[in-house]
Amino acid sequence: MEPESVAIIGAGVLGVGWAARLIENAVAVKIYDPSPETEDRLARVLDQAERAYAKLTMAARPEKGSITVCNSIADAVGNADWIFESVPEEIDLKIATLQEIEAEAPETSIITSSSAGIMPSRLQKGMKNPERFFAARPFNPVYLLPAVEIVAGPATSQRLVERGNSFLSAIGMKPVQINKETDGFVASKILGAIWKEALHLVEKDVCTAEELDEIIRNGFGLQFAQMGLFETLQLADGSEDIAGTNVAAQMKLQSGQFSLAELERIRDDNLVAIQQALKANEWGAGLVLGEYEKKLFDAGAAKSDGSDYSKPIITLERRVPPDWTDYNNHMNEARYLQCFGDATDAFMKMMGVDAEYIEAGMSFFTVETHIRHLEEVRVNEPIYATTQLIDAGGKKMHVFHHLYHRDGTLLATGEHLLLHVSLKERATCEPAAEVRANLDRVAQAHANLPVPEGLGRAVGQKKR
Amino acid sequence: MEPESVAIIGAGVLGVGWAARLIENAVAVKIYDPSPETEDRLARVLDQAERAYAKLTMAARPEKGSITVCNSIADAVGNADWIFESVPEEIDLKIATLQEIEAEAPETSIITSSSAGIMPSRLQKGMKNPERFFAARPFNPVYLLPAVEIVAGPATSQRLVERGNSFLSAIGMKPVQINKETDGFVASKILGAIWKEALHLVEKDVCTAEELDEIIRNGFGLQFAQMGLFETLQLADGSEDIAGTNVAAQMKLQSGQFSLAELERIRDDNLVAIQQALKANEWGAGLVLGEYEKKLFDAGAAKSDGSDYSKPIITLERRVPPDWTDYNNHMNEARYLQCFGDATDAFMKMMGVDAEYIEAGMSFFTVETHIRHLEEVRVNEPIYATTQLIDAGGKKMHVFHHLYHRDGTLLATGEHLLLHVSLKERATCEPAAEVRANLDRVAQAHANLPVPEGLGRAVGQKKR
Repeated sequence: MEPESVAIIGAGVLGVGWAARLIENAVAVKIYDPSPETEDRLARVLDQAERAYAKLTMAARPEKGSITVCNSIADAVGNADWIFESVPEEIDLKIATLQEIEAEAPETSIITSSSAGIMPSRLQKGMKNPERFFAARPFNPVYLLPAVEIVAGPATSQRLVERGNSFLSAIGMKPVQINKETDGFVASKILGAIWKEALHLVEKDVCTAEELDEIIRNGFGLQFAQMGLFETLQLADGSEDIAGTNVAAQMKLQSGQFSLAELERIRDDNLVAIQQALKANEWGAGLVLGEYEKKLFDAGAAKSDGSDYSKPIITLERRVPPDWTDYNNHMNEARYLQCFGDATDAFMKMMGVDAEYIEAGMSFFTVETHIRHLEEVRVNEPIYATTQLIDAGGKKMHVFHHLYHRDGTLLATGEHLLLHVSLKERATCEPAAEVRANLDRVAQAHANLPVPEGLGRAVGQKKR
Repeated sequence: MEPESVAIIGAGVLGVGWAARLIENAVAVKIYDPSPETEDRLARVLDQAERAYAKLTMAARPEKGSITVCNSIADAVGNADWIFESVPEEIDLKIATLQEIEAEAPETSIITSSSAGIMPSRLQKGMKNPERFFAARPFNPVYLLPAVEIVAGPATSQRLVERGNSFLSAIGMKPVQINKETDGFVASKILGAIWKEALHLVEKDVCTAEELDEIIRNGFGLQFAQMGLFETLQLADGSEDIAGTNVAAQMKLQSGQFSLAELERIRDDNLVAIQQALKANEWGAGLVLGEYEKKLFDAGAAKSDGSDYSKPIITLERRVPPDWTDYNNHMNEARYLQCFGDATDAFMKMMGVDAEYIEAGMSFFTVETHIRHLEEVRVNEPIYATTQLIDAGGKKMHVFHHLYHRDGTLLATGEHLLLHVSLKERATCEPAAEVRANLDRVAQAHANLPVPEGLGRAVGQKKR
């Protein structure tokens, strides 16, 4: 199933979200909603989606599908392969809309409802061709969240559902078909229960809305994002209460291919990765991690004060995280430069080019880099870098890093030329006096060190 | 408050989790639990935590605190600054344990309970010094999840709670103090409501445990991980139902500093970042994104078949995502190499070094890199790379990339030497015949192209 042209009836949060996901995946969309705000809301959400997709994947994206705002249901559905009914959650309105859609749409098109819980059997009752109808409930924002809850009614053709699911997968979604219809689908039941309890807690003044959200986004929300509910409980003492039940059997069916220890490692890797991702965005649990890390860095910097500059300086110490490796099963080449960049940053900080200095408007920019990748580095290996200052005359800072395994094996070298710049002018300028003095002190001490093997070489050039 | 020595009574999931977080943060821990499995469980969790912390932050970590398994409560609490009561959730057991702790512990130590919902007033009743007691409920795994729900009783000293919270923050946690005690704290009430509804859905055969988890981890779980419940609802139509209520006012208080559009952008950035993080771990929504991206790459590769090799080949086209920028507010230097590495990968794929080829045991490894960072690149700028094959004799592949802004400005050049290797032997070898033929064909076509400016230069070397 590859619909070329779809219609969306109803331009609420879900309707425009469907539109955004579909046009980003090369599908032509016609949309109808009687609200005068339709064009504005659509434009805003399509912009948001374009922005998000530019970041979501680095694969080349297909040409966008066209989008047409129509003046009636008839205009929108005339030649649609698939019609997404996304009008407000009122049963009479939905039934009337579906009848109008069926009167105007091709006989072969699929019709789905974005309903959160009106039973498909009730919506199918008045339809001429009920076999082509099922519920496909997405989550806001539809263009970024993969899940779609699929609910068939008694008259639905399972073959059509499968065609639909295969298309939803092709546009990056995760259709999950539940076993049977119920009044209120799965997500809606769960969210309803949470919402009721949360409202009650806030109304009773047990906590504020913000406190409740902080508990979720720094606590079980991070679990739900990767394991859901049951898989999370596999790893807690709580699962003992349900030993021997159907639910316990189902939990085993889901997670049983992993040992407890494996599942814990997967969970930990996911929690680390999510918190690091949020750290880059300075949000939620990522903010907490960022502050924690800043304290550790400061403690490290305080400890390294009064360093011995008669040797290359240790500027990096860490282990190789799993997401630094690539399809060749070793550390990706860009991570070598990340290590060297971090080592340069640590060295700059020691020289007084710290957050405050940068805030005041000056920094060093790297203008040239030469890396020799000498040995493969595997996940979790303990590595460290040393930094030797080659030259720090005028606006220049020429450094040479060695990257080692903790056992002393040389893994790579990095040679870097940086220039001191004014961040306001975006032009080179002299460093401040204190930085100048620090650089001179280290340059003098490092002048006595041996010239590093590999310094000054071009790519492919042998020893000279 | 900087406790130097703490005691943990009860070594269940939460007790050993506390132990792991504390020793990773340089605190000496004594732990007691009558279970014969204590040592084993503790060892397993401390290993997991060590593994996770190696990846969590690249800051240098403090020396680990010591861990001592004790034979009695008296042994454990004798000189503890803080005692974490983490015995099973039974009120009589907790009361008896707290009395035994108080009998043996210094008068000045803080005592907290990991209870999920036994009211502090009930636990304080039998205590000699109830002012030093409050509930501090963490989430499993305690060493990775920041949230701690803090609940004071009527007799608790708020000054001591604040000292405690400041210590919890220092070890990377997010203490959230709720307004008043209640039978079942906030997380416990919310999780209880979810659990009840989820059990019901699975027992009624509406869905399986796995289907329910898929809906959560591909749907609202990704929202909860970064915005929680109320902030997510700010962005959905659903918030209209509660207009004018105390809850609506509280939601505004939390998120009101952002416009709707700003909050949507923050949410989208977080959802993109979390899904990319999970993609690297091949899990949950990240698996879905990975498969989607693979389809896009394949479609792109299919399109570029039969390329015109008389010019450098376009091997990368993308926009600069926000998390690629650094404190200097431009693209981080390591991302230049990521672009060039990705361009090299795309070129290799065109030459037949694709997933199948690598699976069969051969690949190219980069051994040397020279980058000239010529212009700054800002967030969201459209960039592309072209690749010129300089030499492909024998086991070598020598390529030169140009990175451009879409407007044609040259941003950087990358010169790379790769060697063809056997992944089994981890040694160089000749490429397979088909790859050989492809490389020869391109090398011949590219032999007529001008020599790129900058080729063969060392760091800091001027034109020659």
